[in-house]
Amino acid sequence: MGRKAAIIGGGVIGGGWAARFLLNGWDVAVFDPDPEAERKIAEVLANARRSLPGLYERALPPEGALSYHADLSEAVAGAEWVQESVPERLDLKHKVLAQVMEAAPPETVIGSSTSGFKPSELNAQGARAVVAHPFNPVYLLPLVELVGASEQTAKAAETLRGIGMFPLTVRKEIDAHIADRFLEAVWREALWLVKDGIATTEEIDEAIRMGFGLRWAQMGLFETYRIAGGEAGMRHFLAQFGPCLSWPWTKLMDVPEFNDELVDLIAGQSDAQSGHRSIRELERLRDDNLVAMMRALKRTGSGAGGVIAAHEARLPRAETGPDGLPVTVEMQVPTSYVDYNGHMNEAPYLEVSARASDRFMEMIGADAAYIAGGQSYFTAENHIRYFAEIDIGDRITVTTQALGGDGRKLHLLNRIWTGGDTPAATVETLLLHVDLSTRRVTAPGGVVAERAAGVVAAHADHPRPDRLVLNQPRG
Amino acid sequence: MGRKAAIIGGGVIGGGWAARFLLNGWDVAVFDPDPEAERKIAEVLANARRSLPGLYERALPPEGALSYHADLSEAVAGAEWVQESVPERLDLKHKVLAQVMEAAPPETVIGSSTSGFKPSELNAQGARAVVAHPFNPVYLLPLVELVGASEQTAKAAETLRGIGMFPLTVRKEIDAHIADRFLEAVWREALWLVKDGIATTEEIDEAIRMGFGLRWAQMGLFETYRIAGGEAGMRHFLAQFGPCLSWPWTKLMDVPEFNDELVDLIAGQSDAQSGHRSIRELERLRDDNLVAMMRALKRTGSGAGGVIAAHEARLPRAETGPDGLPVTVEMQVPTSYVDYNGHMNEAPYLEVSARASDRFMEMIGADAAYIAGGQSYFTAENHIRYFAEIDIGDRITVTTQALGGDGRKLHLLNRIWTGGDTPAATVETLLLHVDLSTRRVTAPGGVVAERAAGVVAAHADHPRPDRLVLNQPRG
Repeated sequence: MGRKAAIIGGGVIGGGWAARFLLNGWDVAVFDPDPEAERKIAEVLANARRSLPGLYERALPPEGALSYHADLSEAVAGAEWVQESVPERLDLKHKVLAQVMEAAPPETVIGSSTSGFKPSELNAQGARAVVAHPFNPVYLLPLVELVGASEQTAKAAETLRGIGMFPLTVRKEIDAHIADRFLEAVWREALWLVKDGIATTEEIDEAIRMGFGLRWAQMGLFETYRIAGGEAGMRHFLAQFGPCLSWPWTKLMDVPEFNDELVDLIAGQSDAQSGHRSIRELERLRDDNLVAMMRALKRTGSGAGGVIAAHEARLPRAETGPDGLPVTVEMQVPTSYVDYNGHMNEAPYLEVSARASDRFMEMIGADAAYIAGGQSYFTAENHIRYFAEIDIGDRITVTTQALGGDGRKLHLLNRIWTGGDTPAATVETLLLHVDLSTRRVTAPGGVVAERAAGVVAAHADHPRPDRLVLNQPRG
Repeated sequence: MGRKAAIIGGGVIGGGWAARFLLNGWDVAVFDPDPEAERKIAEVLANARRSLPGLYERALPPEGALSYHADLSEAVAGAEWVQESVPERLDLKHKVLAQVMEAAPPETVIGSSTSGFKPSELNAQGARAVVAHPFNPVYLLPLVELVGASEQTAKAAETLRGIGMFPLTVRKEIDAHIADRFLEAVWREALWLVKDGIATTEEIDEAIRMGFGLRWAQMGLFETYRIAGGEAGMRHFLAQFGPCLSWPWTKLMDVPEFNDELVDLIAGQSDAQSGHRSIRELERLRDDNLVAMMRALKRTGSGAGGVIAAHEARLPRAETGPDGLPVTVEMQVPTSYVDYNGHMNEAPYLEVSARASDRFMEMIGADAAYIAGGQSYFTAENHIRYFAEIDIGDRITVTTQALGGDGRKLHLLNRIWTGGDTPAATVETLLLHVDLSTRRVTAPGGVVAERAAGVVAAHADHPRPDRLVLNQPRG
């Protein structure tokens, strides 16, 4: 039986939690008296299924089972994690947490999605909840602020890492934790700028996303400023900008009156800015952008990219493919692979194949350490045949057959499968063993040569495709 | 003679401006009495040359000429744009602007990089400067806040768009314009959090980059919140979160004392967080991340991605390649194309080739409108031969030879050049004309068939490679 999470309160946040657990193989039991809860969670899940798997170059585990319960105790029974995401009213949270305490085993982690309340407030009536405050969309953004007793947050952190999230344990409890304090400060300033007619909502969004938003997505505030200080470092930066604190640059000492006029102004500007797109369209645009940016960060391991890389390394690999050959890639197709023809573009087939060849090299011992030692394989030729279209979200499995591997050449066939009896594509590839210092072709080292020959022998009886064009005797 | 920009005051910001203009083909004349200016600008330029061209799938124009001048008037003479980036002291700015006014033609745009002063302050002694406030790194981030007289900002905006930037014209002058007001609000709150021991500098950076930083990089504040409001929209969001304004969530009504103790605390934490990397390493990491994220956003056209796409569309295309065939791609290799072997990975060769085939399709009339009309070409086979390694920053030119194009098949040879007499790689590609509704192979429409046949005839006498493997008679 799988691990179980109980989601108390659906909606955008609860639904996001449900998706995170479910897509990472947990069973999820939902309790929400809202008659619309099932529909709302289904919509969040559809978004999550479309985007989350695209972050990884490995397949996520099979989805867990999702169930809805009219009874809170039933949802909570046997759950390893209970996540409360009910509206932000302390009396309501107290009531729900008391019910959870009655039904949950003592070792269960009880997390609250509260954006404002402190653990001491949540637990004033004897509960033992920790704040586990996520960020929308919960199925994509890694951050979870954890606040509470250290033995509980330590345990919670381990589980969160297991579902690909980034637990940030806050040192002392304060109202609104950390991130929301920044959001609140920016929000207040933004309201002033709109109210005073300095900028519209759209202009404010441009001021953020064309400039510092791009900096913050990968480095945050202090590391960005450290660079701005240049070679003289952080002290120089502080000496330069510290004095600004006494300048009247913000209006934050004061708060604008929140009246109908201000609401009309903001809602009207927001309609003019984004009203031509439905919320569903905006969500998908946001998710496509997030996945593409986070995939971009995975290469350097910065920020969210590092979290994804670490999670990916923990995902299990399949051993044997539909044709009995070793699996060298298993992943789901991200939206960025798809082109104007509405299917996977011709180029990502080779990206996938290149990854399969890398994995094969690893398997015969030509791994990162071998490359660091100054030897590697370079690709000399590829021949790609496209047999079937591949769509967003399709699960790709690549198997690799060693067609030849004697001496300096390695001749592989990567078959790309998406289900069915025949591959969707084949990539015949010819690699040459190279000395990285001279960039010249050489014979591989002992272990690699031996293993390559071993795999070629093991695959010798496996059927070959009807047509090979590389490494053939010339007639 | 090219267009000329004068840079008054080097350093990180002035150097960034110099790089923007220079890499977009402008001549740049620098005036900075700092004996280190030349070295500093050279370092910024090295970073810019390494990263900026990687944003585009087209080549930037040839670099302009860079010159250093001991005399301000000499630097300014004949300049179409003068950019002042001297330290943030009003008396100094007045002095420099007066000298610029004397030397510059009346039609010259005079921009000031000031982050705090208003045009009325800058021009108090009769200058006619506009605020043109950029964001570091200036050679990558598109945002420039423009403040000043509308006829001047309109003219400035046009020039800025021409060098790939995003001019945001501020409606009324205020201290610190728009973006820096947010930065100041967040900075103050961050100082409190560090001072009060709630979070370290590193934890604050994580709280930003693992969560809302990723949201803001692509949508900003209001569009993000619009989505959070869900189907009920912005009004619902405002009703839900407006009341928080009266809660004591921020400490911003007060400002922490900026003393040695606070400086030590922050500088020490920053060293612990980032001290294992030099500023130069951090700059390159930041730039690699920015380029990769902005390239990711180019696909959807969101935020900075839209700016890059628009600028790219305005970049000129070469007509004829080194072999006399039509050029279908000309671009510089971004860092993300390079792999563990220290050269361009095998997969981006096909990405580049796919783009060349797309361009060829456009040239014969199978363009976006044709595809929207329900017909297109699908790739059936590719054969790639790798002859030479390609490095970061190499300028790639692809030429396309039509080997055959009768009826349903289109048989192309894309040669990838990086200089020299022979291509670095060739991609032989076979495309099939397809009806997009049935997904079946069909004959192309009249104009496309005609043009394809015309190009095949025109290329018939061009030498063919020694070895072709696709679309050959089977023996």
